[in-house]
Amino acid sequence: MGGDHGPAVTIPAAVAFADSEPEAELVLVGPEAVLAAELKKLKADNHPRLRVVNATEMVTMEDTLEVALRRKRDSSMRVAINLVKEGQADACVSAGNTGALMAISRYVLKTIPGVDRPAICSLLPNQKDGPTYMLDLGANVDCEPQHLHQFALMGSALVSAMEGKPRPTVGLLNVGEEDIKGNDLVKQTALLLRADHEKGTLNFYGNVEGDDIFKGTTDIVVCDGFVGNVTLKASEGLGRFVKGVLTTELKSGPLNMLGAIIARGALKKISQRLNPSRYNGGSLLGLRGLVFKSHGGADAYGYQWAIRRAFDAARNDLISRISSKMADFMPQPDDAAASQMTATENIEQKTA
Amino acid sequence: MGGDHGPAVTIPAAVAFADSEPEAELVLVGPEAVLAAELKKLKADNHPRLRVVNATEMVTMEDTLEVALRRKRDSSMRVAINLVKEGQADACVSAGNTGALMAISRYVLKTIPGVDRPAICSLLPNQKDGPTYMLDLGANVDCEPQHLHQFALMGSALVSAMEGKPRPTVGLLNVGEEDIKGNDLVKQTALLLRADHEKGTLNFYGNVEGDDIFKGTTDIVVCDGFVGNVTLKASEGLGRFVKGVLTTELKSGPLNMLGAIIARGALKKISQRLNPSRYNGGSLLGLRGLVFKSHGGADAYGYQWAIRRAFDAARNDLISRISSKMADFMPQPDDAAASQMTATENIEQKTA
Repeated sequence: MGGDHGPAVTIPAAVAFADSEPEAELVLVGPEAVLAAELKKLKADNHPRLRVVNATEMVTMEDTLEVALRRKRDSSMRVAINLVKEGQADACVSAGNTGALMAISRYVLKTIPGVDRPAICSLLPNQKDGPTYMLDLGANVDCEPQHLHQFALMGSALVSAMEGKPRPTVGLLNVGEEDIKGNDLVKQTALLLRADHEKGTLNFYGNVEGDDIFKGTTDIVVCDGFVGNVTLKASEGLGRFVKGVLTTELKSGPLNMLGAIIARGALKKISQRLNPSRYNGGSLLGLRGLVFKSHGGADAYGYQWAIRRAFDAARNDLISRISSKMADFMPQPDDAAASQMTATENIEQKTA
Repeated sequence: MGGDHGPAVTIPAAVAFADSEPEAELVLVGPEAVLAAELKKLKADNHPRLRVVNATEMVTMEDTLEVALRRKRDSSMRVAINLVKEGQADACVSAGNTGALMAISRYVLKTIPGVDRPAICSLLPNQKDGPTYMLDLGANVDCEPQHLHQFALMGSALVSAMEGKPRPTVGLLNVGEEDIKGNDLVKQTALLLRADHEKGTLNFYGNVEGDDIFKGTTDIVVCDGFVGNVTLKASEGLGRFVKGVLTTELKSGPLNMLGAIIARGALKKISQRLNPSRYNGGSLLGLRGLVFKSHGGADAYGYQWAIRRAFDAARNDLISRISSKMADFMPQPDDAAASQMTATENIEQKTA
């Protein structure tokens, strides 16, 4: 139900994804009548791998966390996350209110032992034509070094699972490459990451700067949620600005339009390579269940990418990978309230 | 002598600027023989408004602050800043080592009363085809609310002087627009800025997000130097990435090249509108003298913009404007070491 366009985008995306991926089964959560009508429009009301689960309410962008969490107990978001908790779904995908999605996910699913705070990890395009994974992008605006350390470990497990890289590189976002650069937070974090690197348990590249995100210097860029959110939104804003300038100028006058038509092959390639839809689908990392967040403005093509990422994460057993990584590193979780199971119990479970 | 290209860029830029601006007098600082040779090449060795001041050393990008500050006492940077201190120059422009430029400027010129820490303020292009002024961009990686407050006041004085806007708008960079969003630093800062707004002494817009920089929502965007530096470099990196994709694709094959030639009017306009050179010239704000920093990679066209900004700041009496703004707001400077004169003395000086 979420995002700028609601079921008009999410349902066509789900149908298209189910058709492109024969192993996928999709559960559509929302008011039954609304979803049934949308499916009928697409002639997919009898699709063998699509089913509807009713939810009578929905979380809006304006809802406070209090409202989303305490009052709307039958929201599509809550019902979908409950399905993950109950093992009826392997992952949840939503284009709705990010804060509410994180709060409900955390409340319902709890965090993985060793994780104090879940983080949001998204992909950005880079010059090497691959993705740069960046986290945290806004879940945690005030961080301590141990949080960034956990983000590095979780990001590393994510890239291993999603890209099949056994030892993905981790960069620490800073104002310079040298060790002496940066604020206290990154200097302290660097010590933790370097210690892991020396033990061979993390492939820590060192400090990276803002432009390294788009150079693709490392697979993962770690930062606090304030810096990550501002950087991501600034990049999105610059992208829209550049796109606006290109469109305006190439449509200004018949000669420019003719040139654009003749070079349409190049323009199409440019549009493909820079299309943010290809990088849609942020992961809420550190929860005992898979939750993926689509950009609210995503179209059906973009939303399919978010479903694709959730599907890949489930298939590659992301939760086990993160749990195992965290158990190795953080035998004593600091945030007892958020995760009642100890790391030891977790190890026992896995080895049982 | 600074920047990636040294006198090969700075001298042609100085000559071109002097030619375009009949009121400008330029002092070129560096090894006399090197500069004389460069001037001769440009047939400007007898230019009536260009003179050379000798400096036997130069600060490199690799020099530590210790070396730049204590050992190279006859560096072109040090000599140029001394000229400002002695009143022989109205402003200094450099494309050299930013850290060294800030350290030497602060040591030689001292800070304006009421300013704890100088900041770096640069311009970014926005959708309204105007500049967004952003500070701090890296001079202060750990900030307290009073520092961001001072940045807002200085930025406001800068935009008044440079753009002739009596009440420029100030936005506080945050992860959301609502008051409840953000980390402790921005929440505390917002209280200070809002108090000023209610007194009518600052035009505080409220919180802005990363994309507002390029939307041009406010004239000034205030943030700590860590966030500012990362955001600026990420934007530069994304800009280079997009430019690379455009260039590669439009040169791939004869049809695309033909289209690009036909639409060359549009491509030229695009290149102009997005050219970072037009926004070159960051200001080191809060010092008792004007110092401007050019991007190290600037070409002669870009370097001329940095000279232009220094010239405009001098002509519009930026130092007095900042001093007056700070004196109104901060009668007791916190950083006694950096500014030995009290705000009262400063007011006496101005009214004397």
